[in-house]
Order: sequence, then structure tokens, then C-alpha cells
Amino acid sequence: MTPTNQPEPTSDVAAPAGPHVVVVPDSFKGSLDAGQVAAALREGVLAAAPDARVTCLAMADGGEGTLDALLSTWLTPVRTVTTCDAVGRPATARWATSPDGRVGVVELAEASGLPAVSDQPLQPLHAHTRGTGDVAAAVLDAGVEEVLVCLGGSASTDGGAGILTGLGARLLDAEGRVVPDGGEGLAGVAALDLDGLHPRARQVRWRLAVDVSNPLVGELGSAAVFAPQKGAGPGQVAFLDEALTRWANLLERETGVRVHELPGAGAAGGVPAALAAVLGAGLEPGAALVAEAVGLPAVLDDAALVLTGEGSFDSQSVRGKVADGVARVAAASPARPPVVVVAGQVLLPADQTRAAGIAAAFSIAPGPIDLDDLLGRTAGRLTEVAASVTSLVLAAR
Amino acid sequence: MTPTNQPEPTSDVAAPAGPHVVVVPDSFKGSLDAGQVAAALREGVLAAAPDARVTCLAMADGGEGTLDALLSTWLTPVRTVTTCDAVGRPATARWATSPDGRVGVVELAEASGLPAVSDQPLQPLHAHTRGTGDVAAAVLDAGVEEVLVCLGGSASTDGGAGILTGLGARLLDAEGRVVPDGGEGLAGVAALDLDGLHPRARQVRWRLAVDVSNPLVGELGSAAVFAPQKGAGPGQVAFLDEALTRWANLLERETGVRVHELPGAGAAGGVPAALAAVLGAGLEPGAALVAEAVGLPAVLDDAALVLTGEGSFDSQSVRGKVADGVARVAAASPARPPVVVVAGQVLLPADQTRAAGIAAAFSIAPGPIDLDDLLGRTAGRLTEVAASVTSLVLAAR
Repeated sequence: MTPTNQPEPTSDVAAPAGPHVVVVPDSFKGSLDAGQVAAALREGVLAAAPDARVTCLAMADGGEGTLDALLSTWLTPVRTVTTCDAVGRPATARWATSPDGRVGVVELAEASGLPAVSDQPLQPLHAHTRGTGDVAAAVLDAGVEEVLVCLGGSASTDGGAGILTGLGARLLDAEGRVVPDGGEGLAGVAALDLDGLHPRARQVRWRLAVDVSNPLVGELGSAAVFAPQKGAGPGQVAFLDEALTRWANLLERETGVRVHELPGAGAAGGVPAALAAVLGAGLEPGAALVAEAVGLPAVLDDAALVLTGEGSFDSQSVRGKVADGVARVAAASPARPPVVVVAGQVLLPADQTRAAGIAAAFSIAPGPIDLDDLLGRTAGRLTEVAASVTSLVLAAR
Repeated sequence: MTPTNQPEPTSDVAAPAGPHVVVVPDSFKGSLDAGQVAAALREGVLAAAPDARVTCLAMADGGEGTLDALLSTWLTPVRTVTTCDAVGRPATARWATSPDGRVGVVELAEASGLPAVSDQPLQPLHAHTRGTGDVAAAVLDAGVEEVLVCLGGSASTDGGAGILTGLGARLLDAEGRVVPDGGEGLAGVAALDLDGLHPRARQVRWRLAVDVSNPLVGELGSAAVFAPQKGAGPGQVAFLDEALTRWANLLERETGVRVHELPGAGAAGGVPAALAAVLGAGLEPGAALVAEAVGLPAVLDDAALVLTGEGSFDSQSVRGKVADGVARVAAASPARPPVVVVAGQVLLPADQTRAAGIAAAFSIAPGPIDLDDLLGRTAGRLTEVAASVTSLVLAAR
């Protein structure tokens, strides 16, 4: 999603009598970005209700793509910092602040993402998040009051040690030497020196967008569940789990905060562990956090209908993804507008859909059709289904 | 559709506070009959709105299957008459009357249908509707005030001469001899003897359920457009068109009614020609006629939602098919409940759907899927989509 093909995040000027419809989709992976999806849905709404006021907002689930979504809504300048990637090579990472300058956004995948380092053999023990720490330092330098850290897409399992390092902390071994970056360094860490920590690091509010509930360590922990995707074999998984445990023990000793079993601490190679313990970061469902950041609650005040969508609507969708975030905000809205998901495929049963606060989910498939045909017709079908849904909602009012 | 698997056509007993949802689908050809479709939709409605009052009505478009639909709603006994099929072989045909005995139903396909004679080479010149005339006579004997004739599925191109014959009329040639049955007889017809016509034939109201607008003769006439499906080659088509013209000329001479260009007179091999001219029959869109016969207008009085459906929702659907009939009745209802089509495939664009008075049409396809898979999941998907639609309508109210 880029600002160029994103519908303007402001409302259409139209007769005030028409219904207000809010369009906040995710991207349809492999077919359309979120801005294109929003444009197609908007066209359908206006076909069925020419006097409707349509507000398109970019949304994301707090993972990769969130920075783009926020930029396209905020229309603030893209900021960059020169830093290193997950294996230490020079890299440029983007970040942004909200229009009022109060909120800074750090997307972990920018500096420390897996795709950027997949041109060479994966380094599950060495990969780290130090680059993201450099980005965070730049955000703090900008004077923000709140840092929103978008997790997801990480190459590392370093328990967030790299971010602390980038912010000026030092991890030392029993002899007082700085340990190497990455999970391997945690295996020998004995002390945490926070003297050099960025002076503003503990003055701001840290909010972590998390879309998993895995704990830091153990069978469902970061190493066991996610490290294999980052190249770790069985022995390395065990090594990393032990290293993370050692790190969590140290954090608990130094800060009094126990993060071993914290739900969500296993996200992004354990990044929340260090940030929760040392910086008091809070973990929040990503989509709800982004919904707030783009100003969704306010635009729902007088909404008659909220349309969202994504390529595949399944059980994951109602666990912290865009549709879930939209539904949560809508449920908390005084207007309680119906939320409808328009998806490439609908796999979640209707009862679970309703239980998640979503009135209905409809597929764009017009009947029996193969994937390639449907991908080619995504925009047109989004428009058609949005028109049908709008027409029905207005007829039922 | 048979009475055994048809949900009871009466309303559920439920808390009076719940919304009233009316379920009136067509069959899904090749997968479920209308009763099964209704049951699946009803299950979805109740899943989303356990306190809903659901009224299931059988519907049909006035063609084949209409008698079954009416029987399953009326729950009146099936009556039979022994007569002949379209080529004169012995056959048994069913008919029915409404619960109050006022309306009798004759389905042309019962006695004179094409499927019953497709076990032998088609006889486009010889096939006739005399058996249907016998059925009509039995219906008149029962004392009805109105005869609903369901057309469609005919094997003949006899201009309705067979029905008149079955009712006691005689078609004579120039020498005063009775002409043969079928279109071939019309080629030599010179006089119409109505002395033996059933005494009640001209005392009742005849209503013909017609789903085409073709005239009796000419390029868009019954012979040119429909006779080839009944086995007629080009020469036979020309012969039949000429015979129908001769017949129409005779009818006009005898009754003063000109049926040559009457829209719909080309249905069922020209049956409306004789019935309109001699018996004053009116031609009506089939689905609307059936909707009235099953009592749809009255049940829509307090409906919050009307669900209908068919296998393929396309441009034909809004020209006299079930969905069209339902939409017309709903549009004329004071409650103006939204009508939603749930279909195997949705081919009609949303704007044309709305223009036909249908709020929305949704496919049961959950995403990319092949036909066989979807056929196997029809009932479950009907339930899911009905639940989604119900949930959305209630959320939007």
C-alpha cells in the first residue's frame, strides 16, 4: 500500500443526508493492496448509495505494512535512518511520526526483517534487532511521547536485546565483555548495563503491536515455534530457548519484571521481553492499536456500515488481524455500526464470525471459479459485493 | 420437491418478539429441491436469530414443478386422471385444488410433457396436448372457479388445440372430418365445433402461467423458437408456423380474438392461443401467479427479510422466475421487506439486481471452488450465507 493509490483518507463531500459508510480493508495478498481494495469497495458503496459519505482509512494488523498504512493516512513525511540489517550489513530504515508529532512508529521489519537477509543462508543464532534499536533512538530524538513498535517479520531470536543495544544499553558476560549480537550472545550474558541508555527511552510510552500470544520460552515459546522459520535446526532451537531463558532470568533480576510466561512475549524473536521489562512496554493486539492510530474510533461515530476485507477470512482473522481490530473498535462505538467482511475466501464459520463482533462475511467468488480467475476479477467483484451489502443494509434500515 | 422433505409451510411457533423471516426459494437444479433449500436457509436464519419466526413457502415459476410446490404448501390431496401422453399412449396425470376448492391447478408437463415421450423419436408434428385437456375437464368437474394452467416442458406445437379437444371441442377439416391431433392437424383445420365443449369451460377464470413473451407465429414464434427443441427440422418448423397461422386465423374468425402477435402466446407450443381466444384465458408471469397462489402476499405483511434462491441467478431470474415473482410481491407489500437471493452462482450485476427490486444476491461459494465441491456443500453453505444475511439485516435495523 502506498499513498499514491490509496484513496484519500478524508471523507467525500456529499449531501449530508446520505449514510456514512466506513471502508477499512486489509490488503488482498497476491492481488490488491489495501488502497486498491478500499477504492473498489468504495465504488460499490457509491453505486448502491450515490448519496453516501464514504470514509476510506488504511488499516494494518500491526505487522509488516503497518508503517505504510499509517503513512497513507497521516500523510506525514517518510523519515529514514541509516543503520544495519538483521545480520549487520548497512541498511536504511524508514519511520514516521503522527501529524501532531506525539506518536512515533517503528516497524521492526524495516531494519530487522527476514526478507532483507534471505539473500544469504539464514543465521538464526546471529540475527539481531540492533538496527531497530537505532530506528527507535531516532524516533526518541524526534521528541515523541509515545512509540508504537510494529512487530512481525523478524529474522532474529534475540529477546529484544538488539533494540536495547541500539538504544545504548550494553549486554556483558561474566568477565564484563560485551557479548555478541543475536541469540548466541544471550547464552553468555551475565549483566545488563543501562548507563548509556537513551535518556528519553524511559520517559516515553512504548506500545507493542503483537499478533501472537506465545510466551517467551518453553514449548510454545519464541524459539520452539518461530525459530525454525528463521533457519534454526532442533539443536539451535534448544540453544535459543535456553539463551532466552537466561536472558529472561537476568531481566527479572535487574528489573523485577518476569517475562518468561508473558503472553505475546514470544513475538518477533522475543522482542517484547526486553521492552516490557526494561522500558515498561505494553503489549496490545496490533490491529486495535493501528485502528486507534489511524483515528478509526472517531469516524465510526455516525457510521451506518463498516466494510473491511482481506484475502482470506479465517480463524486468524479474528485474532488480532485487521477485521478483528475493526470489529473491536466498532463494538466500542456508540453507533455500533454493523461490520461486514468482504474476502477472497471465507473460511470462518458464520457463528464464529458473529461471536467476533462481525455481522457477516461474504466471499467475492460469484460461484464456482478457480483461483486465477478470481484473482483477475478481484476488484470488480469487491465492487459488486460492496454494492450488494450496502444495498441490503440500507433496505433493512 | 415433495411434501415429505418440505418444511411445513406454516410458521414456527416462537416468541412473538423475534423478527419474521420468509423463506421462499426455488430448487437448486442438480443439487437440492426447493424444500431442501428452504430447510437449509431456515437453519441459517435460526442460527443467527434464534427468536426469529421463519415462514417457509414453496415457490415455483409456473413451469414444471409448480404443482409440487403448490401441493406442498396447500397440503391438499393429489388427484389423478387417466389420460394419454403427448403421443397418445395411456398416462396418468396429477392435478390439485386449493384448500378452499376454489382454484384448480393443471400442470401441462404432467400429461403432455416432453420427458415422458423422449423414450422414442420425437414427433414434432404429431405430439399434442389432448391429455392436458382431459386433466382440465377433470378439474372443471371438481367445481373450481379458477383454473391455473402451468405451462412449460411441452412436447407439442399444437396451438392448444389438444386441450380444446380434451375439453370436448372438435377441429374439422373442409370436409367436416375431425383432423388429426398435433400440429399436423392444424394444417388442414377449417372449422371449430364447440358444441361439445365442457359446460363449465367458459364459466371459470383461466389463468395461464407463462414465462416467455414470444408471439404465436413468425420469426420469434412458437415454431421458430421452440419446435427445434421438440425435434422439428427446418421444413417442419415452416410447416408448423404455417399451421399455427391457419389456426390463429380460424380462432380469430370464430371468436373475434386475434392471438397471432399476443406476447406469450408462443409458450408451450402455442397453448395460450386456443385458451385465450376460446376460453378468455389471461396470460400472467408465472412466478407472480404462483406467489399469489401460495399466499405469499399475506405472509410478507410483517416480514423483516425475505430469502429466496436458485442455482443460477442470472438475467433470466428477473424475468418471470421465482426471484422475480418474490421481488414483485415484496415491492407491493406495505412492509417492503428486503429481498435477498442466495444462489449457487450470481451472474446478474448488482445494479440490475437492485433494479429488479432485489436488495442483494450472494453466492454460496466460499471462495475459489470447483463445481463438484460446491454442489456437495450446497446445504451447508446455504445455511452459512442465510445466517450471515440474517445477522447483517438485524444488525442494520
